[in-house]
Amino acid sequence: MSIRIGILGYGNLGRGVECAVKQNQDMELKAVFTRREPESVSVLTPGVQVCHVSRAADFRGELDVLILCGGSATDLPEQTPEYAGVFNVVDSFDTHARIPEHFARVDQAARQGGKTAIISVGWDPGMFSLNRVYGEAVLPQGKDYTFWGRGVSQGHSDAVRRIQGVADARQYTIPLDSALEAVRVGKNPELTPRQKHTRECFVVLEKGADGARVEQEIKSMPNYFADYDTTVHFISAEEMQRDHSRLPHGGFVLRSGATGWNQENSHLIEYSLKLDSNPEFTASVLTAYARAAWRLSSEGAVGCKTVLDVAPAYLSPRSGEELRAAML
Amino acid sequence: MSIRIGILGYGNLGRGVECAVKQNQDMELKAVFTRREPESVSVLTPGVQVCHVSRAADFRGELDVLILCGGSATDLPEQTPEYAGVFNVVDSFDTHARIPEHFARVDQAARQGGKTAIISVGWDPGMFSLNRVYGEAVLPQGKDYTFWGRGVSQGHSDAVRRIQGVADARQYTIPLDSALEAVRVGKNPELTPRQKHTRECFVVLEKGADGARVEQEIKSMPNYFADYDTTVHFISAEEMQRDHSRLPHGGFVLRSGATGWNQENSHLIEYSLKLDSNPEFTASVLTAYARAAWRLSSEGAVGCKTVLDVAPAYLSPRSGEELRAAML
Repeated sequence: MSIRIGILGYGNLGRGVECAVKQNQDMELKAVFTRREPESVSVLTPGVQVCHVSRAADFRGELDVLILCGGSATDLPEQTPEYAGVFNVVDSFDTHARIPEHFARVDQAARQGGKTAIISVGWDPGMFSLNRVYGEAVLPQGKDYTFWGRGVSQGHSDAVRRIQGVADARQYTIPLDSALEAVRVGKNPELTPRQKHTRECFVVLEKGADGARVEQEIKSMPNYFADYDTTVHFISAEEMQRDHSRLPHGGFVLRSGATGWNQENSHLIEYSLKLDSNPEFTASVLTAYARAAWRLSSEGAVGCKTVLDVAPAYLSPRSGEELRAAML
Repeated sequence: MSIRIGILGYGNLGRGVECAVKQNQDMELKAVFTRREPESVSVLTPGVQVCHVSRAADFRGELDVLILCGGSATDLPEQTPEYAGVFNVVDSFDTHARIPEHFARVDQAARQGGKTAIISVGWDPGMFSLNRVYGEAVLPQGKDYTFWGRGVSQGHSDAVRRIQGVADARQYTIPLDSALEAVRVGKNPELTPRQKHTRECFVVLEKGADGARVEQEIKSMPNYFADYDTTVHFISAEEMQRDHSRLPHGGFVLRSGATGWNQENSHLIEYSLKLDSNPEFTASVLTAYARAAWRLSSEGAVGCKTVLDVAPAYLSPRSGEELRAAML
């Protein structure tokens, strides 16, 4: 009676879900769906079918949860509503500003199909969101802060790669210790983007490209870099491969607040992540919420949810009795 | 349409709840119940009734949630089951080993009365429990660690006070940095009690008491001190009053785990609290869960729950739409 999992999209995230499913004894990977030629894709788990994505809906009734592992820019806005009517689904949609709209579309599809969907699962949105909500609820007189890094930002790396003359690039977001410390000591500072994070770019130039011009274009790029102190390092393709092929990330959510009749007592709640692999950790969170989606659906829940709507016990393979005896 | 709150027990915790209710715009304190002479108890909130505890049940229908602020040793095992049939209730029962039994009794009473109860609310059990469960679910191949302090342990302070010749005592539990660091770097250490925490006692002796004997009795006390490195300081009553009258506490929950096909990537999740006032923070958590109890009850939920059974959104005064737009 394992939970039967399907994966749609087999990049870093999909492979991470495959690895996470292996760690969860109550789950079984049944199928991987890809846009590529299925024959060209080899997965890690013995005996698992690889199918073209066009065949996914044929698996209706054979999967308990489909985990959507596409990107937020173009894949998930299409795929999650499409499959939420057919399967219980979980996705990691992370374009914060578009979550309400995505939620509405997925909710409608899931309700029509009588299925449970959980969107925006991962660490931000995801575990960080939980901590923002718990923190604000517990310390209503206070302020919250989210810091990211040290870690590779895919969006910023892509932005640098689009500059003419750049062969490859990796951008690290780095939280400023001075800002973290100001929050930790309860100063409740107002922080500009520049005071919270610095950005560090490693760039491989194309032959003959003008480094000074590339550096100038990076540092002046609006939204991405102009509001930050940015450092640019030019390195060789070999150095890029050797030193920057992993995708570490992490960050901090802090809630600083006061209690007492005259707010005379200060409190600090700090949640932090240090991740060797951003996609594998995101995949691990997705997989735990796949369990929740399956359980909620088994109880008759219908429609779209986020991590904020799911009680923690649903994520755990342990029973309520076990959790109360061992974990509470 | 405020949530009407009652407080049963007006010590540090009850007063903390009163302060927390003041910070929550959607709540209103209606009554405080005490075992003392009501005339002898003056509360902070203007216009709030103070009643003898024997009258509490008369308020059936006039309170949305009764927050039980007694102690876990003798008060809550009686009070929570008694009132769970009459009101929606929240308590901070923290005797970990007896939670299953307390849960069963409260669940039965709440079901009979058609009410919602949430027990063992606070930070440990409570916020720390949440983090243990989330951490294990997200990183099943891993290990979790809970450290407490630096902070005053009431139980250990009481144990020292019971020694003959001791006029007053305060015990601080202190996590060992070396242990925290070993966990943070991913060593997954096996740690004895002595390797995790040290204990520091500040003791006021009664006139003529033998300090050496008291120190020996403290350090050799089974369960409380014998398994730890303990430091004992003798101080004056004035120093106790001046330097040790607050009740700070806090601690850490860490989950260290590995992902990847061969567990090649390491991750660290760290949650920590630094609290100026243990009772006021506990009270703030209780108050947020009182909102959840009221909402769950309004939706028809019946029976006993713990923090593990409550979705985060129930703690927040914000709507689902607001949470998705602003907090996710």
